Amino acid sequence: MKAHTVYKTINTKERREFVRITEDVAAAVREAGVQEGMVLVSAMHITAGVWVNDDEPGIQTDALEWLDKLAPPSWRRPANEVARGLLPEGGDYRHHRLGEDNGDAHLKNLLVHHQVVVPITGGKLDLGPWQEVFYMEFDGQRPKRLIIKVLGD
Amino acid sequence: MKAHTVYKTINTKERREFVRITEDVAAAVREAGVQEGMVLVSAMHITAGVWVNDDEPGIQTDALEWLDKLAPPSWRRPANEVARGLLPEGGDYRHHRLGEDNGDAHLKNLLVHHQVVVPITGGKLDLGPWQEVFYMEFDGQRPKRLIIKVLGD
Amino acid sequence: MKAHTVYKTINTKERREFVRITEDVAAAVREAGVQEGMVLVSAMHITAGVWVNDDEPGIQTDALEWLDKLAPPSWRRPANEVARGLLPEGGDYRHHRLGEDNGDAHLKNLLVHHQVVVPITGGKLDLGPWQEVFYMEFDGQRPKRLIIKVLGD
Repeated sequence: MKAHTVYKTINTKERREFVRITEDVAAAVREAGVQEGMVLVSAMHITAGVWVNDDEPGIQTDALEWLDKLAPPSWRRPANEVARGLLPEGGDYRHHRLGEDNGDAHLKNLLVHHQVVVPITGGKLDLGPWQEVFYMEFDGQRPKRLIIKVLGD
Repeated sequence: MKAHTVYKTINTKERREFVRITEDVAAAVREAGVQEGMVLVSAMHITAGVWVNDDEPGIQTDALEWLDKLAPPSWRRPANEVARGLLPEGGDYRHHRLGEDNGDAHLKNLLVHHQVVVPITGGKLDLGPWQEVFYMEFDGQRPKRLIIKVLGD
Repeated sequence: MKAHTVYKTINTKERREFVRITEDVAAAVREAGVQEGMVLVSAMHITAGVWVNDDEPGIQTDALEWLDKLAPPSWRRPANEVARGLLPEGGDYRHHRLGEDNGDAHLKNLLVHHQVVVPITGGKLDLGPWQEVFYMEFDGQRPKRLIIKVLGD
C-alpha cells in the first residue's frame, strides 16, 4: 500500500471564502502514483469545512447567506427573525467569553463537516460530472492548514 | 490490497425519495472478496446524500418534512414562517438564474453529506443493529450515479 | 495492509453528553502498529454522532443549545418560536408512534454525521492543534457502541 501526505496552507483574503481545491487533490493523487484507492481531504482547523459541490457562484452565495441564518455570526446583525432565534440565549456565544468572535464558525464546521473522502480509480479522482472539492473558510485571514492523505496501490 | 468499484444508477419515481442500498453495498463487498477494510459509498451528484439510519418510514417522513423547512424548495409554498425565513432574500435561489429549480437540493446535500464510509470486518459490513444505508434523492426522476468503492484485504 | 478493530461501549450518565475519545482512537492506532493509514471512527447507533472540534466547554454548550433549536426534542418545551416551527406538523415526531421519544436525536445524527476519518502519519493521529474527537450522545443512559477501525501499513 502506498501513502502520500500533502499539507496545504490556505490564507484567505476574506473572512469567509470558498477555495476550490480539486486540482490540489488531483495533484496529490498523481504524486502518490496511486491507481486504486481513496484520498482523505480534511481541514486541520475547527472553523472550516470541506464540501463537494458545483463550482457555480450562485450556489456559493446562496449557501453562505443560508449558513449565516442557520448559524448566525454575533459580530453583525442577524439577517432576520429566524437567524435571531438561532443565536444563543442572551445573543452571544459562550465560546466568546475566551475573547473569540468565531462561535458561529464552529457551528458551520459542524453543518458542513470538515472532511470528505474521494475515490481514486484508474489513477484519477472518481468524481461525478459537476463535483468539485471546496475548502470552505469561515474564519480566515490567517494561515490555516488542510491535509490531503492518499492511500492505495 | 484489493480494490473493487461498483457504479449504481438510480432513477427515482418521485422527485425526492429514500432508496435503501445496504444490500447493494454488501454485495459489492462480497464481490470484492475483502475481509478487512472499508467501503466508501458516495453520491456522484450534488443534489443527493447518503445517510445511515433506521429503516423506519416515520423517521424518513419526519426527516424530509424537516429538511424542507431547513432548506426550503422555492417551487412550493414554505411550510411556515421559519421555512420562509430560511429561503434566500428575495425568495428565490441565485442558482435558479441558470434555469434550475433545485437550489434547495444543493443545501440538503450539504446538510446530509454526500457520502459515508462503512467498516468491513470478517467479510461483512460492520454496522450496528439498526444501521441501514440510504441514498437520499432530492432532485430525481432522472438517472443519477452512486459509487461504491471497496478497499481492503 | 494491517487492520485493527476496536469496539467501545459508552453509557452516558446524562441523556445527552459529549465524550472525548481522542485518546481511545490514538490507543487503537498504537495497538494496530500502523504508521501510515486512516482510522474510521463511527457510531454504531443512529441517535449519536462523532464530531472533531475543540475541547472547550463553551462550544459544547453552544452546540447543544443550538442543536436543540434546529432539531427540537418533543419531550420538552421548544426554546423559542423558531424551535417550535422546526418541530413536526402536529408537534410530535411520526417516529414516536412506535413508542420512542428520540425523534430529535435521529435528526441530530443527520446534522452532526455519525463518523469521521482521521489520518495517521508517522504512527500518530494527524490532527490539527485544536482538533479533538468527540462522541456526541443524543439519547444515552444505556450502553451504546462505537467502532474504531484502523487501516494502513
